[in-house]
Amino acid sequence: MEIKKLEVQKSEVHNSEVHNSEAQKSEVHSSLLYLDYCATTPIRPEVAQAIARTIEQIYGNPSSLHQAGRAAKKTLEAARETFAQLLTAKPSEILFTASGTEANNLAILGALKHPDLVGCHVITTVIEHPAVKNAFRELESRGHSVTYLPVNEQGVVQVEDFVDALRPDTRFVSVMMANNETGALQPVNEIAQICRSRGIVMHSDAVQAFGKVPIFVNDLPVDLLSLSAHKVYGPKGVGILYVKRRTKLFPVLFGGGQEKGLRSGTENVALVHGAAAAARMAVEEMGQEMERLKSLRDELQKRILDTVENVRITCPTVPVLPHVLHLTVADVLGETVLLELDRESICVSAGSACSSGSAEPSPVLQAMNVPDRFIHGSLRISLGKDTTQKDLDRFVDTFAGVVAQLRNMLPSSFPQIPTGV
Amino acid sequence: MEIKKLEVQKSEVHNSEVHNSEAQKSEVHSSLLYLDYCATTPIRPEVAQAIARTIEQIYGNPSSLHQAGRAAKKTLEAARETFAQLLTAKPSEILFTASGTEANNLAILGALKHPDLVGCHVITTVIEHPAVKNAFRELESRGHSVTYLPVNEQGVVQVEDFVDALRPDTRFVSVMMANNETGALQPVNEIAQICRSRGIVMHSDAVQAFGKVPIFVNDLPVDLLSLSAHKVYGPKGVGILYVKRRTKLFPVLFGGGQEKGLRSGTENVALVHGAAAAARMAVEEMGQEMERLKSLRDELQKRILDTVENVRITCPTVPVLPHVLHLTVADVLGETVLLELDRESICVSAGSACSSGSAEPSPVLQAMNVPDRFIHGSLRISLGKDTTQKDLDRFVDTFAGVVAQLRNMLPSSFPQIPTGV
Repeated sequence: MEIKKLEVQKSEVHNSEVHNSEAQKSEVHSSLLYLDYCATTPIRPEVAQAIARTIEQIYGNPSSLHQAGRAAKKTLEAARETFAQLLTAKPSEILFTASGTEANNLAILGALKHPDLVGCHVITTVIEHPAVKNAFRELESRGHSVTYLPVNEQGVVQVEDFVDALRPDTRFVSVMMANNETGALQPVNEIAQICRSRGIVMHSDAVQAFGKVPIFVNDLPVDLLSLSAHKVYGPKGVGILYVKRRTKLFPVLFGGGQEKGLRSGTENVALVHGAAAAARMAVEEMGQEMERLKSLRDELQKRILDTVENVRITCPTVPVLPHVLHLTVADVLGETVLLELDRESICVSAGSACSSGSAEPSPVLQAMNVPDRFIHGSLRISLGKDTTQKDLDRFVDTFAGVVAQLRNMLPSSFPQIPTGV
Repeated sequence: MEIKKLEVQKSEVHNSEVHNSEAQKSEVHSSLLYLDYCATTPIRPEVAQAIARTIEQIYGNPSSLHQAGRAAKKTLEAARETFAQLLTAKPSEILFTASGTEANNLAILGALKHPDLVGCHVITTVIEHPAVKNAFRELESRGHSVTYLPVNEQGVVQVEDFVDALRPDTRFVSVMMANNETGALQPVNEIAQICRSRGIVMHSDAVQAFGKVPIFVNDLPVDLLSLSAHKVYGPKGVGILYVKRRTKLFPVLFGGGQEKGLRSGTENVALVHGAAAAARMAVEEMGQEMERLKSLRDELQKRILDTVENVRITCPTVPVLPHVLHLTVADVLGETVLLELDRESICVSAGSACSSGSAEPSPVLQAMNVPDRFIHGSLRISLGKDTTQKDLDRFVDTFAGVVAQLRNMLPSSFPQIPTGV
């Protein structure tokens, strides 16, 4: 992938005194190899253009009654219709928020504000994104009893564990569609079916899965489903919440009563318009593009295993998002690998973007009982629409060099990296 | 003002079967006269371009450790620095949210989550924007005792009333800087000084006032201050909350811990960048531009009073935002006037955009005891950077015609419009 756009910023960020010695090297690989599409995606140029046009032309407040307002309202409702179509939902079942985080918060905290659900038992998993996990921590502080389902050693929730956790007073369940670190797909459909049969409200965080695997609510008995635009080449700043009709939801932000009273605040018309355009393209191209990425991912995995010793694939035999390769490398720190790759202008993640900077091993990997020797060497490589075959060569060569170099720096007797480093 | 951009949408909204008969008329005034700058503003072309550039180039997730992430983080922090400078605050005192509504909610609900403030007495006013008023309703439901300060007949809170409302357990106060319907400025400085001397946390919603009157926190003893970008020719989707250091604030949305743990969700880098650019320009141009708008506004007021009988200026002798003219027209419905003006491609508001569509008189006007004959005929005309002298002619002529026509349709004995019509 050759993203030239970032070069201006690169030269600012990599300022001269730090990287003078790299001047020659950087001529070889001056372009950025972005392999962190799970953290966020570059926006599609067509989407950026659609936003630029809309943000200037459709400037009215959708709450205004005059034509400037009505034009804005019309644009907003067209975007709602698009998301409804893509999910096989009704437009009235689509709410816009400002992020996947806000969509998750509204779904969880908003549903549990129902007076009948005060203090009820709720179920989620140990591997949820912080936007879900921390909303459940808030539920705990509000008096709910929460069960956090474990995962197996490939990071997958087991339906039997879910069934065992059910109690007569279980009224709300949230299980993510695909994990944001490992990419492992979760048995949402099975769990949702059980929830529906028992009248339990079911939410799923589909932020990572949307646009990568088919998601149709006419086929998936969830009541609430969260999406985010910036994971599918859309803008940051738009979350989408599907709310099945008759689901009882209460606002968590209060104000002018926009979005059927459930999400107050002047609607972000231009970005929502761009989000819908991006989502449509992602879904339309999904079949072909995900096949292409899966094939690249599988090849990358094979070549890494062939080239670098003591690398452990995190989810080797379970269904994983087609564009994600999560692995752990023995005897190195994932964050150090990340930073060394970054010096070669390759962007990956050591965990999720949201937990960057933490020295603790990821709770997701801890929950999977990844062996001590590997757990600190976590790396998430996520491919995207600009990733090409050629990028695999560059990545594998650089990665092999970085790992060899780091391992050479270790004492030969290095047993394992102490916890908390 | 000649905004040609909206013409494409206009033709879609005003579809042919409804407005065929207006074909000839529309040739005369085919361009839109937008006089609803309090509802929202058209984005500055330079700001739109800055956003378009940034949204493509700076696509990283600011939480990512690699250079794409760092470039995004750097852009975000530069915007934070800009807002800090404009308000004479420190960058660490600036938080970004997705709207003025969210900034208000975070300030109010976030401050009152402090364990020491459980059930305390809080004070606000009867004329707050719904984003504040409804947050206080939520506080009531959480066991707080709330005093809603009245206003005088020009819509201004009286400091004596505030002092009388103070109780030993008063711990939080929120008074808006300028009202969103009438534009009347409120005695925030005096009230804030009293709060500071008593250790009471003080918030002010400055969404309408920012960029129109000077706001410098080194001169204004508030602890929390909310702004919004789309009222100053910036994008929709960015709110700004000033949080004076040492103010105890707790999150209302939970997740990855962005914005110092106070506002989770991937940061909207491009829009925040554009918001800062717009805010800087608004503040830099403020002195000259507000003088120009005040002079136009005063002339518009005079010409309306000279031309149309039985028009009542809502705040004739108190300080009002320089670009706002709020008036009430006897014996007509404001919303009908709005819609008739809209047929002539003139955009104004009958109240605030956020309460559009409601048949009840505005609570703000009710609180001011506007006489019955006038209270339903409310109109907010708000001028902006594209408003010219020529626009006044067009507005006054059209407005006079619309009012005359509507009054002619009334029975001559029409005493007053019944409440709730």
